[in-house]
Amino acid sequence: MYDIAIIGGGPAGVSAAINAKVLGKNFIWLSSRATSKKVGQAELIKNYPGLPDITGNELAWTLKNHTESMGIEIKEEVVTGVYETGGKFSLLAGKETYDAKTVILCLGVETSKPVAGEDEFLGRGISYCATCDGLLYKGKTIAVLCTDKHFEHEAEYLCDIAGKAYVMPLYRGYNITSSKAEIILKSPVEFRGDMKIREVIFKDGKIDVDGVFVLRGAVSPATLVHGLETNGGHIVVGRDCSTNIDGIFAAGDCTGRPYQYIKAAGEGNVALHSAIEYLAKNKV
Amino acid sequence: MYDIAIIGGGPAGVSAAINAKVLGKNFIWLSSRATSKKVGQAELIKNYPGLPDITGNELAWTLKNHTESMGIEIKEEVVTGVYETGGKFSLLAGKETYDAKTVILCLGVETSKPVAGEDEFLGRGISYCATCDGLLYKGKTIAVLCTDKHFEHEAEYLCDIAGKAYVMPLYRGYNITSSKAEIILKSPVEFRGDMKIREVIFKDGKIDVDGVFVLRGAVSPATLVHGLETNGGHIVVGRDCSTNIDGIFAAGDCTGRPYQYIKAAGEGNVALHSAIEYLAKNKV
Repeated sequence: MYDIAIIGGGPAGVSAAINAKVLGKNFIWLSSRATSKKVGQAELIKNYPGLPDITGNELAWTLKNHTESMGIEIKEEVVTGVYETGGKFSLLAGKETYDAKTVILCLGVETSKPVAGEDEFLGRGISYCATCDGLLYKGKTIAVLCTDKHFEHEAEYLCDIAGKAYVMPLYRGYNITSSKAEIILKSPVEFRGDMKIREVIFKDGKIDVDGVFVLRGAVSPATLVHGLETNGGHIVVGRDCSTNIDGIFAAGDCTGRPYQYIKAAGEGNVALHSAIEYLAKNKV
Repeated sequence: MYDIAIIGGGPAGVSAAINAKVLGKNFIWLSSRATSKKVGQAELIKNYPGLPDITGNELAWTLKNHTESMGIEIKEEVVTGVYETGGKFSLLAGKETYDAKTVILCLGVETSKPVAGEDEFLGRGISYCATCDGLLYKGKTIAVLCTDKHFEHEAEYLCDIAGKAYVMPLYRGYNITSSKAEIILKSPVEFRGDMKIREVIFKDGKIDVDGVFVLRGAVSPATLVHGLETNGGHIVVGRDCSTNIDGIFAAGDCTGRPYQYIKAAGEGNVALHSAIEYLAKNKV
């Protein structure tokens, strides 16, 4: 029986694991990958305080080295279910079951319904983060797939930076005002290129681009934990990163925007401290 | 008129400033010191993900170098008041006034509590600003509460102006050389007076004064911003780091526990993004 089970290998999970180790807790850390795929694919990160101009790949390895230097191990397993039994939790991972008194969910966000070629060109001209990668496309030609009105200010920001921006709002009542935006009212069916993305393909034509930004929400993690309260695909948490289920905490992108590495790392720390407080209070 | 004013030079302020720069916002960054004193004093930090086993001093300089590498400047000024006028904010700092559409408070936590009566006599004989109010006390008797070596030059300046100055250094290794300074090595427990402050009370005595200068890095949040909701000395914020005052956000230790560098850096990022969203929504 572990005190704490941490699920997820991104910055939130790393931060939670480091603090669990520092505080001498008996914990297990599970992730589908040894390092975050999403972090590794970021082209250039300018806003992780203390690590200026670091590539996603460098950040992923820097975080991995930090945990390894402390003797922290990550179990590369996909957790497919979290079940509560008598105030404790059982985690299913493949054929294994792990029991823990508390769980910290650092699940990231899953992109829904990717466009053909999206996975392939992620980090090679396709980005999910205007703040992170926008400046790489200063004066260039980009396409912006905007799936929700909520992201319009990011789309506008990208238009300001780009030389030319094709904006594809996938909803009604869009309000994009940038003079550099050319609105395209159809959905892309495929992204094509060579080493980098080059073209956005539609049913009836194509456009040439230097990069593509995909601005969209997330798939709900509620399937993982039955009864977990979510809102718009994000886990609902308090300031202390507690969820609606006693003993389960959440941190990072899965708790909502902004999707930022440093925000995730900060929440991983908060969630871990809240879990410690929960353990102390409940003597579970 | 700035889009954003960031107050505070710790990890939260650094994080907010970096993101403001990345997003091309017109912002000003004010802090009593170029680097966080509190960060600098930490012996060894093991839980800032990506920077294993870093001393506080190293972290402070790493953060400073990050901002400098991006051409971000910090103005070394103590903000003593934030006033709302017509949905915008005026910041008083020394003799200067800065106007901004939004404010991000990264004030940290003050280890020294306000003295009883401090709030009551603020502006009625108590001042936080030597430069602003010093000349009002030419030839008069003042007390100077100096909380940090960093402010000794302000204390000396006040001694030069005053007829008589009682200086209370609340730290070790003070070096006040003015012949007009009478050093008192104890802490005041209360300020008393009528319409104006008249007396500084100690456990075992009192002194008569015409005015009192309190020189510290930050004033308490509720004193700084009239009407700001606090709880147990912490600024009450939502998940988006918004306060009860539209357009004012807060991040870092001043929003509550855990007092952790990475939590502060994460919140600085969140607060900045919330300020951007506020600006976009309100078109202020």
